[in-house]
Amino acid sequence: MKAEIITIGDELLIGQTVDTNSAWMGAELSRLGFDICRKISVHDNKTDILDTLWNVTGKSDVVLITGGLGPTSDDITKQTLCEFFNTHLVVNHEVLRMIEVMMKQRNFPMNENNRRQAEVPELCKVLRNKRGTAPGMWFEKGGTIFVSMPGIPYEMEYIMKEHVLPELGRRFTSQSIIHRNIMTYGAPEARLAEILTGFEEELPVEIKLAYLPGYGIIKLRLTATGPDKLKLNSLVDEQVKKLYGIIPDLIFGEDEDPLEKVIGRLLKDRNQSVCTAESCTGGRIAQMLTSIPGSSDYYKGSVIAYDNKVKTEVLKVNTSDIEKYGAVSGQVAEEMARGARQLMKTDYSVAATGIAGPDGGTKEKPVGTLWIAVASENGTKSEKHLFGYDRISNINRFSVAALNLLWKQILYR
Amino acid sequence: MKAEIITIGDELLIGQTVDTNSAWMGAELSRLGFDICRKISVHDNKTDILDTLWNVTGKSDVVLITGGLGPTSDDITKQTLCEFFNTHLVVNHEVLRMIEVMMKQRNFPMNENNRRQAEVPELCKVLRNKRGTAPGMWFEKGGTIFVSMPGIPYEMEYIMKEHVLPELGRRFTSQSIIHRNIMTYGAPEARLAEILTGFEEELPVEIKLAYLPGYGIIKLRLTATGPDKLKLNSLVDEQVKKLYGIIPDLIFGEDEDPLEKVIGRLLKDRNQSVCTAESCTGGRIAQMLTSIPGSSDYYKGSVIAYDNKVKTEVLKVNTSDIEKYGAVSGQVAEEMARGARQLMKTDYSVAATGIAGPDGGTKEKPVGTLWIAVASENGTKSEKHLFGYDRISNINRFSVAALNLLWKQILYR
Repeated sequence: MKAEIITIGDELLIGQTVDTNSAWMGAELSRLGFDICRKISVHDNKTDILDTLWNVTGKSDVVLITGGLGPTSDDITKQTLCEFFNTHLVVNHEVLRMIEVMMKQRNFPMNENNRRQAEVPELCKVLRNKRGTAPGMWFEKGGTIFVSMPGIPYEMEYIMKEHVLPELGRRFTSQSIIHRNIMTYGAPEARLAEILTGFEEELPVEIKLAYLPGYGIIKLRLTATGPDKLKLNSLVDEQVKKLYGIIPDLIFGEDEDPLEKVIGRLLKDRNQSVCTAESCTGGRIAQMLTSIPGSSDYYKGSVIAYDNKVKTEVLKVNTSDIEKYGAVSGQVAEEMARGARQLMKTDYSVAATGIAGPDGGTKEKPVGTLWIAVASENGTKSEKHLFGYDRISNINRFSVAALNLLWKQILYR
Repeated sequence: MKAEIITIGDELLIGQTVDTNSAWMGAELSRLGFDICRKISVHDNKTDILDTLWNVTGKSDVVLITGGLGPTSDDITKQTLCEFFNTHLVVNHEVLRMIEVMMKQRNFPMNENNRRQAEVPELCKVLRNKRGTAPGMWFEKGGTIFVSMPGIPYEMEYIMKEHVLPELGRRFTSQSIIHRNIMTYGAPEARLAEILTGFEEELPVEIKLAYLPGYGIIKLRLTATGPDKLKLNSLVDEQVKKLYGIIPDLIFGEDEDPLEKVIGRLLKDRNQSVCTAESCTGGRIAQMLTSIPGSSDYYKGSVIAYDNKVKTEVLKVNTSDIEKYGAVSGQVAEEMARGARQLMKTDYSVAATGIAGPDGGTKEKPVGTLWIAVASENGTKSEKHLFGYDRISNINRFSVAALNLLWKQILYR
């Protein structure tokens, strides 16, 4: 059961757009048990798209294609698919009606470009797209299923969830593949690999272990392959249990749940609340916490105190402490956390102050220096960290470190 | 002058990691004049990696490879390259010393996995990596240059900037490719394409136009190809001038500068400052503004008022107005903006309140409803918008809309 993914568009090759679609589709196909052998991005060039389509025909069971379905003249996927499947474009009246309704709702006038969106290859099965104007298209040729979808992520995801994944699930039963993710924080990759050497050597043959690092978090992915899904599940359960025994302090969650989701669940269960006080992270911690649907149940708000005056006037940090210890210090981090907690009246507050770079570093406090603090009724706890050189990477690492301290304080360990 | 990009790692195919490296490398190669024909992702499987390497040999001038160089056992790129280039691993003592220094600085003990990072194929030219433990490796075979780099983005970027791009620039002189990006906001893609039909038809043969939409912003990309870089530049200049004549109100910047950078430049030039007051966007606006290095010169801070109590107590929004008009209303957006401006003492403030979803929508105020406001010494201006269904997409679109209103108010138009 093999699958390939083709993404189309000059913008993907010259780096104007990061291809997030193929990651999403890969995850979903993999969950259905497909083995994704390759992902190919091609530019908006008819010959090269046709070449790629011929190249995958008959090799894989399913080929998912995104991109090049927009209303403008640089989008040529639809015409190219007509040539490949030896068919021609016809107006689909159901799609046309949907587009008319959608444009009306948004108060945009219909034009020729919108109308062209309703043209589809005569041979394909049309997959309705409630999120946009370009429908999905399902073809079969030479034993391979081809599905073409728009490149806009939430439109592609809608068509996948609504039409493609259910149909693929019905058609294919298979060798099962199970992925289980154990989320860790606190040990770098090489150190973790050292701790887990014995564990890895003793893994049953059905199971593979991978290390996936990102901003201080290392995802341990166990992948089990075999015919019997139940057996695989119990094999993986056993190994996960073993992991908890070896690295209990490093594991904060499972199944790709990020720290912000784990924290949200804890706070919701306990009917507790949190707020944030950020300097160097500029809202990233708040943004991570509020990316979780329903976070308004426990997240109250934040003061982003980029300027020292906001630290002293809004968060009531002592001016003399900023002068004595500097804005990037344990004292100031703790005062920020306490100030925010008092202002927003929450159970917990988390604060971060540091130097994200590229400028602002000194010999004593180089770029990458971070102080974080968490305040609660149990008092205030602060930590110092030293990360790297890159601004965006630092903002992310800083935020993850702050959430990790918050998580540990909520668990009080 | 052709190039291909190969990214290696199971995590890329099953969607655990989004491949941002190939976008970055594609942009850089394209700037040097390379035509990037394909990007291929393969899983951590020796046979498939070897297949892919054989497949590209002799077809392209340059093949950039990332991933699979980590210290753990699932990383097999180095061994596979040895097989492909018919060589073997040897310890590189310079790399070993660098790793020892790096581990010492970060206070981590050296282990066998770290030491293995210093092993490189004997045949390759080693490219120093100051950002991590895995060095880059430069090979040549069958007329094709192969460069293997670690998959961690800032390590790859360091090796590219320090070693690979300068060397490629020296070796290849070529057909030039010029990209120019004109950033627009305010018209959806189909409408913009309609306005620009005539412009597109009259483009000189050397120039192609592409529409790249993202969260309400549409990048117009002009790509010119030809032997004479100076001529291409003046051709593109002419077309850009024409665009400013056709859609003056929609263009906010050039060269992929996001709104937050354009705003930052304006504020810095005028020695003015800004703060934010966010509800539904949960810190995203602040995060966009502070992603720009040096933003502390003009960005003072933010109050994220997720909870209505934070709106009334910290931002001094009238409780009665929240009751009368609802938290998502023009009145509340304006009061949030004025409250933040007063609290943080800035020239401008921007506020957003809306319903990001998936829950919280009503018939009158469905998910996707947004009110934004900007306050300044010229008074307060607010706007209503209606976007879509997806939470993360909404948070992004909301934030871009807010920044656009801020930008227009700074220009006072």
